[in-house]
Amino acid sequence: MAKYDRKADLPVSLARRYLEPGPIVLVSSSCRGKTNIMTMGWHTVMEFTPSLVGCVIAGGNHSFQMIRDSGECVINLPTTALTNKVVGIGNSTGSEIDKFKHFELTADPAEKVTAPLIRECHANFECRLSDDCLVDRYNFFIFEVVKAHVAPSPKHPETLHYTGDGVFMVSGKIISRRGRFRPEML
Amino acid sequence: MAKYDRKADLPVSLARRYLEPGPIVLVSSSCRGKTNIMTMGWHTVMEFTPSLVGCVIAGGNHSFQMIRDSGECVINLPTTALTNKVVGIGNSTGSEIDKFKHFELTADPAEKVTAPLIRECHANFECRLSDDCLVDRYNFFIFEVVKAHVAPSPKHPETLHYTGDGVFMVSGKIISRRGRFRPEML
Repeated sequence: MAKYDRKADLPVSLARRYLEPGPIVLVSSSCRGKTNIMTMGWHTVMEFTPSLVGCVIAGGNHSFQMIRDSGECVINLPTTALTNKVVGIGNSTGSEIDKFKHFELTADPAEKVTAPLIRECHANFECRLSDDCLVDRYNFFIFEVVKAHVAPSPKHPETLHYTGDGVFMVSGKIISRRGRFRPEML
Repeated sequence: MAKYDRKADLPVSLARRYLEPGPIVLVSSSCRGKTNIMTMGWHTVMEFTPSLVGCVIAGGNHSFQMIRDSGECVINLPTTALTNKVVGIGNSTGSEIDKFKHFELTADPAEKVTAPLIRECHANFECRLSDDCLVDRYNFFIFEVVKAHVAPSPKHPETLHYTGDGVFMVSGKIISRRGRFRPEML
């Protein structure tokens, strides 16, 4: 996992490159000295600048109150190499176990938030809660990505995309149609 | 394309099976006798029952006002077979061309909304605008899926996932970890 020690900064407006394809992500949080991790599949990019991401975090998650109280989290992008950890994290609760310890993941310090980065993930997006007006009605949090870190390779890692029912689709193969785009649409 | 004539009904709560993986979708709309189609990559499932999907539709899109005024749309799921049409639709405007005609797509009647289904897509989700409270601030529409149609095969079609910059990731390969899920998490 040595390559994950040398992540590069990414302009926050390019977070969409990794989040718009719709991968399962791991959300890490910290509150009153405790950390936690949850899996999340319900998220969407909402704006480039500021770099906004909307996410549903169900009220039953141990992370819900930690994120609401701290107003922060990190959205981490796992690859298929972490499939079993992703499933394990989604099927356990932070009220019973320390997920970093249990799943042997490394909590690296973030730059702009207190929540930790998950070192073994391909990319890490430090987020601050930007708008909570839909949290009570839909558990919908709007975060601003305030710092982005990405492993230098591979350029297009294999990511997991959840369909429900225990089944993930895998993305990684690429189709480029750059030549067919109007310049202003790129 | 004969198989697309024989779509099956899908319970609307299962729309997540196709939308949660984060594919590019085609949104069809109808208003005052005109139809239109746009591509959309910024969407997320928000609830199973009612079946809610949140979407960003930028105000500059010709579809924006049609969808806001009619309060309806259809979210259609294209496969990689439609890649060039998807790109063409995203790089043209309904203020200048009739996209169904120009891209040789078939407008089938929906059951519960006036907006047409795109026959050549793998799945069609008829939607009614459920909550527009974030439209002014974020162009964020919350739709309820009121009827879902899915082609019987393949079970996991190859879908397009946009990364920006003219590049799509392709999903289709499957990993199942059903055995590792707690029953209540499936």
